[in-house]
Amino acid sequence: MEQNKQFNIDNYSCPIPITEYDKVMMAHGGGGTLSHQLIEKMFLSQFDNELLNMQHDGSVFEIGGERFAFTTDSYVVQPIFFPGGDIGELAVNGTVNDLAMCGAEPIYLSAGFILEEGFPLEDLWRITLSMKKAAERAGIKIITGDTKVVDRGKGDKIFINTSGIGKVYPGIEISPKNCKPGDVIIISGKIAEHGMAIMSAREGLEFETAIKSDTLPLNLLVSAMLKVSNKIHVLRDPTRGGVASTLNEIASSAGVGIEIDELAILISEEVRAACEILGFDPLYVANEGKLISFVEKDDAEKILMAMKNHPDGKDAAIIGRVVSEHPKRVIMKTSIGSMRVVDMISGEQLPRIC
Amino acid sequence: MEQNKQFNIDNYSCPIPITEYDKVMMAHGGGGTLSHQLIEKMFLSQFDNELLNMQHDGSVFEIGGERFAFTTDSYVVQPIFFPGGDIGELAVNGTVNDLAMCGAEPIYLSAGFILEEGFPLEDLWRITLSMKKAAERAGIKIITGDTKVVDRGKGDKIFINTSGIGKVYPGIEISPKNCKPGDVIIISGKIAEHGMAIMSAREGLEFETAIKSDTLPLNLLVSAMLKVSNKIHVLRDPTRGGVASTLNEIASSAGVGIEIDELAILISEEVRAACEILGFDPLYVANEGKLISFVEKDDAEKILMAMKNHPDGKDAAIIGRVVSEHPKRVIMKTSIGSMRVVDMISGEQLPRIC
Repeated sequence: MEQNKQFNIDNYSCPIPITEYDKVMMAHGGGGTLSHQLIEKMFLSQFDNELLNMQHDGSVFEIGGERFAFTTDSYVVQPIFFPGGDIGELAVNGTVNDLAMCGAEPIYLSAGFILEEGFPLEDLWRITLSMKKAAERAGIKIITGDTKVVDRGKGDKIFINTSGIGKVYPGIEISPKNCKPGDVIIISGKIAEHGMAIMSAREGLEFETAIKSDTLPLNLLVSAMLKVSNKIHVLRDPTRGGVASTLNEIASSAGVGIEIDELAILISEEVRAACEILGFDPLYVANEGKLISFVEKDDAEKILMAMKNHPDGKDAAIIGRVVSEHPKRVIMKTSIGSMRVVDMISGEQLPRIC
Repeated sequence: MEQNKQFNIDNYSCPIPITEYDKVMMAHGGGGTLSHQLIEKMFLSQFDNELLNMQHDGSVFEIGGERFAFTTDSYVVQPIFFPGGDIGELAVNGTVNDLAMCGAEPIYLSAGFILEEGFPLEDLWRITLSMKKAAERAGIKIITGDTKVVDRGKGDKIFINTSGIGKVYPGIEISPKNCKPGDVIIISGKIAEHGMAIMSAREGLEFETAIKSDTLPLNLLVSAMLKVSNKIHVLRDPTRGGVASTLNEIASSAGVGIEIDELAILISEEVRAACEILGFDPLYVANEGKLISFVEKDDAEKILMAMKNHPDGKDAAIIGRVVSEHPKRVIMKTSIGSMRVVDMISGEQLPRIC
């Protein structure tokens, strides 16, 4: 078996035009248009297979009649300790949530650490304890790991990759493909808290505001929802790019229109004020403990009640519905009654938010 | 459910003494004594569960009567393109090999990228194509992924995490626990090639030597071995820390003694010369396409033949055996006939080798 190690790239031209975008920019990791372009043209075109899913939360496969979900995320959040959490808790919850959004019960987690030379072991210890606690809360076991160290100045304190395996609940089918006009859109709580907690910390505002990250494992809430109905068509946690980007992704992949009502979307006063001060639209700010679900109209009330009765969904609210008009577009009825198109975020709004 | 996010670490003192070792050092990632100390005291003590395995190649669990292997590795090799391969090929093969060393057929892979702002997209494209090719060769599918970007100077071009899922072959039990006095130790080929290829590239010697990395997926070879015998007790690929560290880890976790014969361990002339010039002991230099197996004496000849008949094991050789004397120690009969203790590597020999 001859290995042609000297790969000749001349036979494969790079699919992203070599113009001003010939280098990686922060926005390539921002969850918006450039991120999508990079993933589609670079990775999806080559790693092509029927299961591949690099855009959304995870991939589902079947072995021996059992359906499993598999997902991965690297966490590079800065600062690593922030109001309401730290990179370790986020790394556990984030991957737990990706599994939960596949309709899976999280079972096993891996942890891969990239440490920068000089990183205090005391901080690593805090992060380790925080991961342990988060894993216990979510009911997931960390069963395999890896540790690498890079030279000072070649990393940034600590990066953590977590990959997760979950077992998909039987009898459900979570996929944008299933969403159809008439479906009701429910969000599990107030938005934009994680992003604004991070931004407050970066801007040195954390002592002036009470904003804390909402980082939370969502699998317990999902389990409560599935107990009352299996007519849940889509589950998604609006992280990078916020509620606006998530709704756009779903509208686009399902080929449906989405209508939302601005007044129905809850935002705390502190978060609203911080967004105004720092110039952010809360619809585009990351959440780390909220989910958006698209559910069959007839079961919407029942599911909403199950969410409100759960501590992790007590502020749940119906925020909109799927329509057959304006396919692939998200339209919002604003607080003053006008209609506004809510676009996909294009550049980077908040780098290194997770 | 009240979340105590302000974790009080005072209740949990850091298990590594706050002395000169209170910060992460390169050697914490070198695969030697400090790496083991960090993993044991920091991670294993907290992520404690019956499946956890952060030291070796992966973790094995059972669902619905089926055994699966799960493993993760982050790749931070420097340089990212080196003689015989690149970080992308290494990231696929390395995780494929970790699964193979669990006695599992690799099935699915995740890919998590941490890109540094400014990294040329053309290089990312080369790496992507290389991963595609490596995945095809090993017969594994990349089904989920993640992309993060960090600011210029906060990363080093590209880090890749791959996590893998495999199905353990039925009827076999690969574990150091099974190795016993009398077992025969076989290595699949010449040693120290990957490490010396990387070092040659770093030292600017790559045009003077023909040394290429041996990066290779080992699952095809393992499959050929298991076809002729299921009496394979241990499989391990001697990566970070090389053959010496791997044998020490096995001796230590199995509580057995190991005897090896220096003359039986094959090293190419180029690698031997490079080791001499650069001052490395080849026994401690990383391999990325070799495996060490501990097999039942009666089946050793049969397994060796199966390896030699496979292109990925054509230079396979018996290098030693398990003994009841000197438990937990590795003793080598040197080329001049004397006996020498082969210790675990203590510091960093080769940082960022994978």
